[in-house]
Amino acid sequence: MIQASICTIGDEILIGQIVDTNSSHISRALNDMGVRVTRMLSIGDDRNEIIGNLSRELALCDIVIVTGGLGPTKDDITKAALAELSGSTAYKEDARQLEIIGRILRDRGLDMLDINRQQASVPDKCEVIPNRLGTAPVMVFRFEKERFGRRSTLYSLPGVPFEATGALNDILEDIHSHYLTERILHRTVMTYGIAESALAKKLAGWEESLPESIHLAYLPDPLKGVRLRLSIYGGTSTDDGSMLDEQLARLRQILGDSIYSMQDDTLQNTVGRLLKKAGKTLSVAESCTGGMISSLITSVPGSSEYYLGSVTSYAVSVKENVLGVEDDIISRAGVVSSECAAAMAEGIRRLTGSDYSVATTGLAGPGGGSDKNPVGLVWIGVSSPTGTVTSSRLFKNDRIRNIERFAASALDFLRKRIESELNH
Amino acid sequence: MIQASICTIGDEILIGQIVDTNSSHISRALNDMGVRVTRMLSIGDDRNEIIGNLSRELALCDIVIVTGGLGPTKDDITKAALAELSGSTAYKEDARQLEIIGRILRDRGLDMLDINRQQASVPDKCEVIPNRLGTAPVMVFRFEKERFGRRSTLYSLPGVPFEATGALNDILEDIHSHYLTERILHRTVMTYGIAESALAKKLAGWEESLPESIHLAYLPDPLKGVRLRLSIYGGTSTDDGSMLDEQLARLRQILGDSIYSMQDDTLQNTVGRLLKKAGKTLSVAESCTGGMISSLITSVPGSSEYYLGSVTSYAVSVKENVLGVEDDIISRAGVVSSECAAAMAEGIRRLTGSDYSVATTGLAGPGGGSDKNPVGLVWIGVSSPTGTVTSSRLFKNDRIRNIERFAASALDFLRKRIESELNH
Repeated sequence: MIQASICTIGDEILIGQIVDTNSSHISRALNDMGVRVTRMLSIGDDRNEIIGNLSRELALCDIVIVTGGLGPTKDDITKAALAELSGSTAYKEDARQLEIIGRILRDRGLDMLDINRQQASVPDKCEVIPNRLGTAPVMVFRFEKERFGRRSTLYSLPGVPFEATGALNDILEDIHSHYLTERILHRTVMTYGIAESALAKKLAGWEESLPESIHLAYLPDPLKGVRLRLSIYGGTSTDDGSMLDEQLARLRQILGDSIYSMQDDTLQNTVGRLLKKAGKTLSVAESCTGGMISSLITSVPGSSEYYLGSVTSYAVSVKENVLGVEDDIISRAGVVSSECAAAMAEGIRRLTGSDYSVATTGLAGPGGGSDKNPVGLVWIGVSSPTGTVTSSRLFKNDRIRNIERFAASALDFLRKRIESELNH
Repeated sequence: MIQASICTIGDEILIGQIVDTNSSHISRALNDMGVRVTRMLSIGDDRNEIIGNLSRELALCDIVIVTGGLGPTKDDITKAALAELSGSTAYKEDARQLEIIGRILRDRGLDMLDINRQQASVPDKCEVIPNRLGTAPVMVFRFEKERFGRRSTLYSLPGVPFEATGALNDILEDIHSHYLTERILHRTVMTYGIAESALAKKLAGWEESLPESIHLAYLPDPLKGVRLRLSIYGGTSTDDGSMLDEQLARLRQILGDSIYSMQDDTLQNTVGRLLKKAGKTLSVAESCTGGMISSLITSVPGSSEYYLGSVTSYAVSVKENVLGVEDDIISRAGVVSSECAAAMAEGIRRLTGSDYSVATTGLAGPGGGSDKNPVGLVWIGVSSPTGTVTSSRLFKNDRIRNIERFAASALDFLRKRIESELNH
């Protein structure tokens, strides 16, 4: 299998000023075409570090993709280091890139300075792929086996994310035409409501019985639940595809409605898809989640098709006066109760006229809990024309994390309710 | 200077399914305490890769911080690899971590399984720092010079970001007590409403005149604005402190009310502090921000002291029926208008009885814009007993980023209004 390494150059990443998103983007694209990324590396703007580390990567991997360090300012020294690494003895000017630089500067109403023109100048041992979105070209260095012990190729990309992304297709094509790439097959399953360890126990028998070629990964996320990923490296045929699909069918049987999607997805997307399909509308009443459920729902483009709105009732007076929760419920059962969650869900449906609604009331902390109502407790209510149901959950995290878990649990409870009603 | 390397373990990063944010967070903290991060590395869940790469890092750096690969499931093999690397011959159970695991499971209403108990079991050559936020403990391996050619320490942290962050302070303390770190003095100033490049231009003269020992960094964040950090490396004395404070005073003069805090802070914290101090209450009416403003405000512990609640009016009917926006305004001026933002702000104040309110209405995209009301336009209204004011902003980002900018701009507009009223 073709192996690749992705290297990021720049002090700004090492001091934590910038989060590197290029590497993740590039590795996804490489994986999809069957190139296995075995390492990612971030190093500083230091000549020795660059030459030492890249030499090592070129000895270990077939393909080394370098991003960053190509800016016009003095602290960017990648190009000089690559010239040395490749044994280039001179620089050559790339006419196509120079033209692009001229156009970019004209568009911005700027004159071409020496510092700009130098961007089109590259070590003579490299091939150039013009960068249409920026001033620094992509450089391709091909090394024969004698140099680092294996035939290897180094691609140097600009660090600006949209330029790196823009150049990626040309690089993938170049890899395709120079290497025999293998295919990697992936399937993703989204689950919610079962913790990673409990899920592992539940799936132990199935996992044991998996064909050896299938690799399984558990990827937990507070807002998405546990994502399961099945992969076959070097998957060549439709046989491998159907082998994965067969395992997905078994997973479905074991996990039932704990699965909310058979592709990489979110709960809010799934809820939106279900509502759109059924032609139903939704509203939300939030206490402890403080607006996060509404915020998640409206993060989905097109959510205005099914989403009417919400009330965040932080104060008791808003629960009573806006949502119409009777003070009798609050004095008898308290604001953190099944009764209050149900009344809030019914109140927001009445107020907005939506088909479905979901409500939360609980204690995110810190402080304020009691034995009966501990911090981390949330009551969820879901109301629809067929009636109102409630459920409670208990989490033990910090405030922000509790709010996230409350919101995701509420979306999942709503999702299951809509699914069960649509199936009837 | 003490040198460190940060290593992330996990296939999910190499295949691009997850963006590594831990490394950036950890490196910022290490830099702040005067430890220089020279490399970051991501490798897969592969025994040989783990042992080979970590051995090399331990030979090159004083401190190696490893995150990830400690989950309870089979694909996580970091612990076994670290046992081998450290020459451990057995495992020992850490009683403190076992107790934490028990508590976490009890809180979730779960029984302790073997797979959970194993999380408390660590290679006998390591010291344990209990992880209070999760099940996998932090492991500390100390290597004498003979082993890798330099005295080095390896810290293994869980990969879940909030657990890694939570464990970080203990690790920094351990580094402090074992290494001679240099002191770095920092001051932070929070600004909002001026883009990074415009800010740099505005501050050019001041920046030129800064004493050479003062290092300035611009740290932009969509929800917080641009954070300015002034640092003196190796700052030893009170003189250095007063030199920094003098520069802060000059900054205050140049930037005026674009500064919302003289310490690392958020807009929602600042608004909360102002309201608490004045004994005033707040409510929110959101259209395009969809709940995010309310969610930000309630992310602050104790926000129920001043926050009453919100209405998210995604549908026009909710604007009219719940917030009482007159249909005359909507038909004449449209929902994205100064008039509608003002009416929403007044409507939510009427509904909740709050002293202050803030409202947003705009277009987050994608699609749906016009020449008059382009995608990225937001109208903000702020209402208080002294009257209602509105303001508009235009951003050019994707949906999520537009919503964030809208929400932060609204909080900042509210913040300035409260400040100006309190100063009268």
